[in-house]
Amino acid sequence: MRAAVYYGKNKLEIEDVPEPTPGEGQVKIKVSRNGICGTDLHEYYDGPIFIPPTDPHPLTGQCMPLTLGHEFSGVVTEIGPNVTDIREGDRVTIEPIYRCGECRPCRTGHYNLCNVIGFHGLMADGGMAEYTVVPSNQVHKLPDNVSLEMGALVEPMSVAYHAATLGEVNDQSRALIYGAGPIGIGLWFALRGMGLTEIDVVEPSETRRRSIEALGARTLDPTKQDVTALIADRTNGNGVDAAFDAAGVAPAVQSALECLGERRPLISVAIYEKPLPTPLINLVLRERRIQGTICYTAADYSAVIDLMAKGHYNTTGWVEDVPLSGVVEKGFEQLRAGQKMKLLVDPTT
Amino acid sequence: MRAAVYYGKNKLEIEDVPEPTPGEGQVKIKVSRNGICGTDLHEYYDGPIFIPPTDPHPLTGQCMPLTLGHEFSGVVTEIGPNVTDIREGDRVTIEPIYRCGECRPCRTGHYNLCNVIGFHGLMADGGMAEYTVVPSNQVHKLPDNVSLEMGALVEPMSVAYHAATLGEVNDQSRALIYGAGPIGIGLWFALRGMGLTEIDVVEPSETRRRSIEALGARTLDPTKQDVTALIADRTNGNGVDAAFDAAGVAPAVQSALECLGERRPLISVAIYEKPLPTPLINLVLRERRIQGTICYTAADYSAVIDLMAKGHYNTTGWVEDVPLSGVVEKGFEQLRAGQKMKLLVDPTT
Repeated sequence: MRAAVYYGKNKLEIEDVPEPTPGEGQVKIKVSRNGICGTDLHEYYDGPIFIPPTDPHPLTGQCMPLTLGHEFSGVVTEIGPNVTDIREGDRVTIEPIYRCGECRPCRTGHYNLCNVIGFHGLMADGGMAEYTVVPSNQVHKLPDNVSLEMGALVEPMSVAYHAATLGEVNDQSRALIYGAGPIGIGLWFALRGMGLTEIDVVEPSETRRRSIEALGARTLDPTKQDVTALIADRTNGNGVDAAFDAAGVAPAVQSALECLGERRPLISVAIYEKPLPTPLINLVLRERRIQGTICYTAADYSAVIDLMAKGHYNTTGWVEDVPLSGVVEKGFEQLRAGQKMKLLVDPTT
Repeated sequence: MRAAVYYGKNKLEIEDVPEPTPGEGQVKIKVSRNGICGTDLHEYYDGPIFIPPTDPHPLTGQCMPLTLGHEFSGVVTEIGPNVTDIREGDRVTIEPIYRCGECRPCRTGHYNLCNVIGFHGLMADGGMAEYTVVPSNQVHKLPDNVSLEMGALVEPMSVAYHAATLGEVNDQSRALIYGAGPIGIGLWFALRGMGLTEIDVVEPSETRRRSIEALGARTLDPTKQDVTALIADRTNGNGVDAAFDAAGVAPAVQSALECLGERRPLISVAIYEKPLPTPLINLVLRERRIQGTICYTAADYSAVIDLMAKGHYNTTGWVEDVPLSGVVEKGFEQLRAGQKMKLLVDPTT
């Protein structure tokens, strides 16, 4: 079968590899779509970062070279021994997180923070291939009315949904989202799914503003509008109930800490490459907080799939397919250049 | 009567002023001790900051010049009209916060965040005087076994106690305190009062370490010890349950964000003069948070007074009296030079 195999920085080869066989407790999946994530770009252009170069990962036993891809959907084609709840032909999406089950985060239900966490597609052969095998406890079935294209988005949408839950909002809340990339879009869908109607998305790029506006979002352009003054005016000085940083830049953090109401959170859902100058005094004077968030657990997957089944998500205008054969040229390079928002690799092409 | 009257930067005069008379709902207090706060130093050396220079404060009607002092205790000597729950001779300490009672923070019980907040001693004539008058709802009675010296410390100790409550700890928790100034000491007393036994205080100054060690605390010297490695070792890599920044410097924030357990808070109880470079990635990867805190409400005062009555607080080695006549030379200047920790003005001398 064909797969995109990672050999280190700037080296991703489309090659023929043996088809995997599902072992004890595993299922084999014919991959339909596999989304390209910012993490994949970091591995390709600056890595290996998360991918173990030489030492096998303790939970998966794998290291470089391995097949990329952790955001995928597909159809189950084979069942390994002792798998009872999944059948051939099931349409599924995968939670890529491998966890030890024994550390404190795992024992307290927060396996997204597992001390020895591994990811399918980073520490085990992933979904940028015709087939992949995964542990059955990481498989989520898709309802009939959720497409496989949508199914490949469950992973990034669950990152955003998990972040949204930490905002402690309800349908009367007002929220601010900084950044209209895929996670910003996911935050907007998640918050709408939670019933919020008062959401503003702050995004300096006109292309990205137009893209999220087409989905129905209200936007602010921080290069032309005084976001702090506007929000103060709209909220009678009370500020918003939650802010979300999906931009990862200092102006977003600083603006959010001016726009938040007292005792309310800024949720950080970005990969900050370096320490940012942060006006902590704005936390102190209004008892605000900055809350970090990463990944998701099964509950977030279930919630997102449920909202997708109810028609809350929409891929129009921000999601496109690319062939496996062009994953670098048509995928990574266009994403890096900011020419595309979200690209799904089709391993049959 | 004699009072320390503030006229602006570097201008604090000890002068004779008329004795105040308690109005409707007010009581007159003969001040026993009034602590000098870092805020007083900022007003003297860099102010006016909080003190209104020309426009009367909306809740108190006062502006400069006015008598400093917001941390004080004393004995009630006169009762204004319509005060029923306080009597002449009562030994008391004062909550200096004036609040509007109408804004959202006030309506939700967080009057420490009142939108038009005022402070006795910053927006109204305060406790660095022989007498002062205050609204009766800001008065807390002291139990017989709590000295007036101790009573003057209830205000700063309540700042620390309120911060400690935001740490969401219990008697099995492990905590780290950065900074062993008066607020750091107050955090240590508060956490001990909550039943914690595993507390480390990180403080680079040997004088301050000796001072808090004499009270029974365990300390770490960040200039000689690798705090992150030590804490990782002591907690089997799990990290501490809460960290408190009472230092307000970047190395403290950075160290705290390495030592915290997953999903646990760093409580910021410092006045940060500028944005600090903050490694927000350390929030994201372990879902940690930074929570700001300021002041206190009546519940914190009650808790501190209760712990004082049970003998949990001790002034030995870190609290000293200074005469009103020497408030600048023997008070402000020694504090600014770091030669003293906490000084209480005695207005009778």
